[in-house]
Amino acid sequence: MASLRSLSIWFFFFFVFLINPSISIRTSFIKLPTSDGSRYCDSWRLAAETNNAGTWDVIPSICVDSVAEYLNGDQFRSDYDVIADYALAFAKSVEISGDGKDVWIFDIDETLLTNIDYYKAHGYGSEPYDNNSFSEWVEQGTAPAFDASLRLYNALKKFGFTIILLTGRDEDQRSSTETNLRDAGYSGWERLLLRGPNDQGKSATNYKSEQRSKLIQEGFKIRGNSGDQWSDLLGFAVADRSFKVPNPMYYIP
Amino acid sequence: MASLRSLSIWFFFFFVFLINPSISIRTSFIKLPTSDGSRYCDSWRLAAETNNAGTWDVIPSICVDSVAEYLNGDQFRSDYDVIADYALAFAKSVEISGDGKDVWIFDIDETLLTNIDYYKAHGYGSEPYDNNSFSEWVEQGTAPAFDASLRLYNALKKFGFTIILLTGRDEDQRSSTETNLRDAGYSGWERLLLRGPNDQGKSATNYKSEQRSKLIQEGFKIRGNSGDQWSDLLGFAVADRSFKVPNPMYYIP
Repeated sequence: MASLRSLSIWFFFFFVFLINPSISIRTSFIKLPTSDGSRYCDSWRLAAETNNAGTWDVIPSICVDSVAEYLNGDQFRSDYDVIADYALAFAKSVEISGDGKDVWIFDIDETLLTNIDYYKAHGYGSEPYDNNSFSEWVEQGTAPAFDASLRLYNALKKFGFTIILLTGRDEDQRSSTETNLRDAGYSGWERLLLRGPNDQGKSATNYKSEQRSKLIQEGFKIRGNSGDQWSDLLGFAVADRSFKVPNPMYYIP
Repeated sequence: MASLRSLSIWFFFFFVFLINPSISIRTSFIKLPTSDGSRYCDSWRLAAETNNAGTWDVIPSICVDSVAEYLNGDQFRSDYDVIADYALAFAKSVEISGDGKDVWIFDIDETLLTNIDYYKAHGYGSEPYDNNSFSEWVEQGTAPAFDASLRLYNALKKFGFTIILLTGRDEDQRSSTETNLRDAGYSGWERLLLRGPNDQGKSATNYKSEQRSKLIQEGFKIRGNSGDQWSDLLGFAVADRSFKVPNPMYYIP
């Protein structure tokens, strides 16, 4: 569909103009109000979800309670539900070719599986990310499914979409990831793509775009893409429609 | 910076993969819950702001009260304020060259000026858009500034950015638009770009991308872009950083 030259131009434009991480800012630059934290935190959450906040490391310390309340309350579930409904409405409008080439991509963490039990024990994103301790959590393989995501996933399978899972988890976490996904109720994915040795050090946007690009080169048509990070969805070789589920706990560039 | 060929490839990718309006869905496809409208409406608003909702014509009828409450309350103002702070933090990080080529683009309606008084009389976006009646409103030229936008605008001028206004309003609304902007407190823009005869019928994304592309060809560097619509910000020739202010009243593709 596109020559290597055109892909590299596409790549260039996207990275220079749209998601250049070198021109992002950090939460710590932002002046925090001393009163009415909840209103500020709701605004911060909207800014984070719409990518207005740029790159950020940890959630604002004054927002821990507000984020915890949101994540443990009904609004978070409702937000996932409404997005799943929009994804389903779009999916119904897609003409499935029947050759197995119509793909829906899902990210895993905070998209199919919720790690809220891990983050609850780590300040809901107010502590810096600790790779060792998160890896131990992944090895346990006990993360539950989001109800709305499981509902969407199963409906898409029934519609005839080919499900491909694309995660920033490492190849050596394949087995625990597969077990966790099955235990949580997911089955029937076509592929589970994890970071291999050659993907280390790449930004998530870059790594995931490359993987999507390879799928397109194989003849797949990426109809839909669900993720909790903009780096799941933007870059190049993007889906016909992308669906961003909320995640106020961390940001992956 | 880019040949016509590369620009057309960029154009092609963006329109086919990212914002193809033919694969968008309408709000009316979405099943609405019969109870707990406020929770649903907050989720709908998040879905609209994150572009998960795709193209929509009018706000869900059950959300009129919820949208009115949001727009007339302190949260809406706070949301603008926080986004302005992020925009300012980014702006401070930009090295201004001093040659007048560092540009910040602003959309006008619902970005610099608020038309809430008009929409209050038209169901806060629950009535279909009426071009004649909105044009009459524009001719009155009485739309006030958003405080946060005026604060951002004036700070950016002080920093040395060249301000360019890019609006979907028509060329024959230039005079009333200029008067309204000045009365609301804005001054010192470098250009006010409105839709000319050749821009009629173009999608906002296409029209605005073309205008930004021309600016780049003139040697301008588009550092920042503020708009209430994704069609203000996406497409091609996008800014280094884009800032999406909230607008739960209407969607322009």
